[in-house]
Amino acid sequence: TSRESRADAPIQEMHVYEFNENDRNSPAYLPFSLKFDLTKGLPVGNIGDLVPFSNKLYDGSLQTRLGITAGMCIMIKYYPEKKGHRYEAIYSFYFGDYGHISVQGSYLTFEDSELAITGGSGIFRGVYGVVKLHQIVYPTKIFYTFELQGIPPLPAELTRPIVPPNPSVTASPNAVRARPGFVAPNFSD
Amino acid sequence: TSRESRADAPIQEMHVYEFNENDRNSPAYLPFSLKFDLTKGLPVGNIGDLVPFSNKLYDGSLQTRLGITAGMCIMIKYYPEKKGHRYEAIYSFYFGDYGHISVQGSYLTFEDSELAITGGSGIFRGVYGVVKLHQIVYPTKIFYTFELQGIPPLPAELTRPIVPPNPSVTASPNAVRARPGFVAPNFSD
Amino acid sequence: TSRESRADAPIQEMHVYEFNENDRNSPAYLPFSLKFDLTKGLPVGNIGDLVPFSNKLYDGSLQTRLGITAGMCIMIKYYPEKKGHRYEAIYSFYFGDYGHISVQGSYLTFEDSELAITGGSGIFRGVYGVVKLHQIVYPTKIFYTFELQGIPPLPAELTRPIVPPNPSVTASPNAVRARPGFVAPNFSD
Repeated sequence: TSRESRADAPIQEMHVYEFNENDRNSPAYLPFSLKFDLTKGLPVGNIGDLVPFSNKLYDGSLQTRLGITAGMCIMIKYYPEKKGHRYEAIYSFYFGDYGHISVQGSYLTFEDSELAITGGSGIFRGVYGVVKLHQIVYPTKIFYTFELQGIPPLPAELTRPIVPPNPSVTASPNAVRARPGFVAPNFSD
Repeated sequence: TSRESRADAPIQEMHVYEFNENDRNSPAYLPFSLKFDLTKGLPVGNIGDLVPFSNKLYDGSLQTRLGITAGMCIMIKYYPEKKGHRYEAIYSFYFGDYGHISVQGSYLTFEDSELAITGGSGIFRGVYGVVKLHQIVYPTKIFYTFELQGIPPLPAELTRPIVPPNPSVTASPNAVRARPGFVAPNFSD
Repeated sequence: TSRESRADAPIQEMHVYEFNENDRNSPAYLPFSLKFDLTKGLPVGNIGDLVPFSNKLYDGSLQTRLGITAGMCIMIKYYPEKKGHRYEAIYSFYFGDYGHISVQGSYLTFEDSELAITGGSGIFRGVYGVVKLHQIVYPTKIFYTFELQGIPPLPAELTRPIVPPNPSVTASPNAVRARPGFVAPNFSD
């Protein structure tokens, strides 16, 4: 019945790659903390800094351009011993006509994290669950494993065998060029 | 059982109008991308721009002042061929004592979109589903169709026959003036 | 069946304290409305102001350091008659290895409010429901009552008898110092 834990419901895995290909003016690092490391000429990364962003999304097989991410990272803290940062990340994954998934949680530049799925549209209407964020190359290549619950079976196009994440992964040339047959229907751009 | 797709659960439709009546200092367009069209003296609309906003909400019959919207649009991209923009929108709809609904998804200035319902309070506790955003007059009049799932039957006050959206719609004078009998209980302001 | 209202599902209460102990550079008040009260030398608090923040979290018994909050308040409006403000609050509660809960709703500086739970990870995967925000001392001490639905029974560590909220509450010295036995596993910091 609906009174049991929803965490026990069946899970569908979906893998996607997010790449910053330096063609979307993203991210926009807004250094509003006004804290800078003058020896490096860079923001230290302190609370007050905001980072709107939008990157490209490919499926786990790297054969299909799916769409984009869109949202914002809110800088929370710098961890000197880890030489990395904690952000609060609030963003969505857009998959063309398939719809979208919204998420919220931690983005840690120095280790993997798990974000909450907060909602979805299209084939993702009613979705809940989590997404595991695995950074491959900071800050340009991220591999995500969605654990989707509450939705009908995914289309085959979104569950193809994956290319395992490694630092040299790139999308297939046909997907990068968004050629017919290598894009989600009306892929988000 | 709870193991089936949640997307199949019964849907209750609820229609609301969002109007910017130029009385809330909204929106606050923060042009942090620092990209401007000097021929127009306006921001181009690029990633980095942030747009906090809060507008008024009326029911679909335009007879009842319900409350306000509150949240932020994050500028993502300008589409020259469509002469419009994509925003990531993260905001809530407040309905006085009835509670609120939070949503996240795309706001496209040039076409309709579908956002995810991410949560709710009051009579909307436990809600999920989507909301369809239909722009009537950019950027001051929007018509929403909520497809609500997981909640008890809506009160009659929220499901009155709608005034079909058209560019000249305005709230009834009694609702604009928030007269007794024309407002939600403790309507948000 | 899943077709009934989800609001009727069993509720587990969880109480947490959020304290600003002035050791996280939080909040970062970004006065982008550019509206200031020159007699006070302070921002009036108008739409456009943004407030990223991160505070410390303790359990309701004040014996255990759990983690942190992280997110942003978006200033919406100043109510002169109440001498207080409305913010749209979008943030997460981090509980170390237990996972996190994301929420969205109103933060009113002059009265209690109810926010929506939008998602969770770890033991909070699949969570929905609401959280009641009760301000004890503005802006440094807040008491929260989570009404959690859709998840397995909480661990005993998160449901200890509470210290009732009052203006002089502080975390126990052992919890403040994050001593072994007084912290959640890998408590967030």
